[in-house]
Amino acid sequence: MKKYSDLSPSPRIIMTPGPVEVDPRVLRALSYPILGQFDPEFTALMNETMEMLRDVFRTSNRWAYPVDGTSRSGLEAVLTGLIEPGDRVLVPIFGRFGYLLAEIAERCGADVATIEQEWGTVFDPNDVIAAIDRLQPSLVAIVHGETSTGRLQPLADIGRACRERDILLVVDAVATIGGVPVETDAWQLDAVVGGTQKCLSVPSGMSPITYNDRVEARLLRRKRIEKGIRPEGYADDDPSAFIRSNYLDLTQLQEYWSPRRLNHHTEATAMLYGLREGLRLALEEGLDERFARHRLHERALVAGLLAMGLELYGDESCKMPVVTCVCIPAGVDGEAVRSRLLADFGIEIASSFGPLKGRIWRIGTMGYSCRKSNVLLTLAALEAVLPLHGASIRTGAAVRTALGAYGETTVHSA
Amino acid sequence: MKKYSDLSPSPRIIMTPGPVEVDPRVLRALSYPILGQFDPEFTALMNETMEMLRDVFRTSNRWAYPVDGTSRSGLEAVLTGLIEPGDRVLVPIFGRFGYLLAEIAERCGADVATIEQEWGTVFDPNDVIAAIDRLQPSLVAIVHGETSTGRLQPLADIGRACRERDILLVVDAVATIGGVPVETDAWQLDAVVGGTQKCLSVPSGMSPITYNDRVEARLLRRKRIEKGIRPEGYADDDPSAFIRSNYLDLTQLQEYWSPRRLNHHTEATAMLYGLREGLRLALEEGLDERFARHRLHERALVAGLLAMGLELYGDESCKMPVVTCVCIPAGVDGEAVRSRLLADFGIEIASSFGPLKGRIWRIGTMGYSCRKSNVLLTLAALEAVLPLHGASIRTGAAVRTALGAYGETTVHSA
Repeated sequence: MKKYSDLSPSPRIIMTPGPVEVDPRVLRALSYPILGQFDPEFTALMNETMEMLRDVFRTSNRWAYPVDGTSRSGLEAVLTGLIEPGDRVLVPIFGRFGYLLAEIAERCGADVATIEQEWGTVFDPNDVIAAIDRLQPSLVAIVHGETSTGRLQPLADIGRACRERDILLVVDAVATIGGVPVETDAWQLDAVVGGTQKCLSVPSGMSPITYNDRVEARLLRRKRIEKGIRPEGYADDDPSAFIRSNYLDLTQLQEYWSPRRLNHHTEATAMLYGLREGLRLALEEGLDERFARHRLHERALVAGLLAMGLELYGDESCKMPVVTCVCIPAGVDGEAVRSRLLADFGIEIASSFGPLKGRIWRIGTMGYSCRKSNVLLTLAALEAVLPLHGASIRTGAAVRTALGAYGETTVHSA
Repeated sequence: MKKYSDLSPSPRIIMTPGPVEVDPRVLRALSYPILGQFDPEFTALMNETMEMLRDVFRTSNRWAYPVDGTSRSGLEAVLTGLIEPGDRVLVPIFGRFGYLLAEIAERCGADVATIEQEWGTVFDPNDVIAAIDRLQPSLVAIVHGETSTGRLQPLADIGRACRERDILLVVDAVATIGGVPVETDAWQLDAVVGGTQKCLSVPSGMSPITYNDRVEARLLRRKRIEKGIRPEGYADDDPSAFIRSNYLDLTQLQEYWSPRRLNHHTEATAMLYGLREGLRLALEEGLDERFARHRLHERALVAGLLAMGLELYGDESCKMPVVTCVCIPAGVDGEAVRSRLLADFGIEIASSFGPLKGRIWRIGTMGYSCRKSNVLLTLAALEAVLPLHGASIRTGAAVRTALGAYGETTVHSA
């Protein structure tokens, strides 16, 4: 038999927009012995996780729980539950992950209308509202933090407009939850989908979601109890309307997360331990303090990059504080720089997608990865590597400038 | 802010048919720092996992990889990829999880035909083959190990019959993979879905699958490249046939697991570490040795239960070696016994579903939980607890008899 070696991953400084380094407390939580899914000790941990998710999503919604799958499983669970074939869905697109929302909605059978904004910017909320009035969708799906371009879409006005018109608003907050304010209730968002592997610093594999009573009412119209656990005399209300997925059927998932604990899947124990610990860390730090920390390290990173003479990509006024997009200098092979950073320094930064591939690097400052040593190491390594790959940059200033941004007044001027 | 306590799960002896105790080496693997999803070190681990899965599934299929979700995500991924609305699908049902296959197939829009066998038995393969000839399905979906009743369905004859008729055969081996032989190639199974949290002793949260070229050809007819990463000039072959799920779209998943690594989800790093370690443990033990170990502990458990005077449920000739169903003695509250075993002894055994709820207990001997100390502790605890709940059993013989089944000839006769 072939021998497979002991697991021994190299240490990494992960400065991508996700997945990012996992907090050691979360790693330790993942390694605890499991409990059975209906063990009262385990269901108590599930309930605590729901409570903490409500705090992190800033909502009083009854429903806030993880879907067992990576982030797009949460997006698909919400969309496939809410979209019936033929429903008009509006997706405002300002980057790759807007296309993903449109793609999922199309696969759900929606009549998808899209409006597009130039990459590197976001929508003026009034333009989205005008499109809503023109296109009359029953549901709007939009990205909050578009990691492909590093832009942050303001949502409060869109939320208010959707509520006034009784339209459901579904938000992809995969990249923002835990790092940037996501005000589910204050912004009147009907369903919000988060991610674990970005600002929460938990490995990928779960997608925390929350949704309100408006969403639940829509879902319950399509409820169908699974064969094999149906009570006697059961009949579907409307047998044609049922949700097309069993695995991602939120009417079943919410029963499983309710005190009834109606059997559906077997909850992913280790990941639930990890998510609970990640949420606990976020709440212990304090959400506002956590958002401020993300802002602080972003400022230091940006100051250092600019001091090197690098240019940032995109409209500064809507920049995500947790992703910084850097224009690859003319003549430089962006992938060669990334490879060397990884191979020689153990630092990972990201490229981008579609029209931005080869044009920008994306540097994340998310969760546990978002810390002073990581920012300074990344700047120092970039400054050392770029000239090796033909970039003409200013040297000797990046780390000094970043330290200044951290408020280190004792730094001697050059 | 509310204080949430440090994670500190009580030690448990988990003797259910899943989830079961996780091997400490797997728990440790879960706790390693993560790597980025496209880090060459990580993609090498993904490739090793595919190799090991081929060995565990006993197949030379190109495709063998995990779906990021619990077991039913793997079932749904295979079925939703293969079933187009209106396709005739035959599901032979002999327990709760057969109903699940029918349920998923219905949600995919299949014209589902079912045949049912009395719970506690399995199908004579000839009866399935006769139904195939009568009902002319394009796909047959069947459970290998039906944990709700503890029965094991022989598959080789059904596999041959399906292949001769050019019908696809999809098998739910969630409960058997790694504990009971699953001969994907020898039995001519077209797609097989495994589980992690049973005989592989990895936490729930991934579903390893394998499928052959026949399945791949069917899938690729429905391929659709996601918007946002489409090459210029791209057009769908048949825009109406596309797979209705994005998250569970195997044509996208296999691209992600291929050397092209076309971006889809973000692979669940920690779970992949855990699955790799669980597979490594299974292959290091040797599959045949592992199956023999499961048989050995089953024999000891059964001998002990019978020595107590308890009756087993179901047809002995098709009993799953990894699940033992015990009739709850008349007048005994099965749930009260289960609760006491958990609360006072830290031992978890399972109840069952539907018509068997309250009638049987199910005791698993799976993976890392399947060991001598667990079998003896379970027998000793049951023997102590049952009389407290009004059962009249024979005492003093169970552990002694089990030790005899382990070949301990030095045990003094009573």
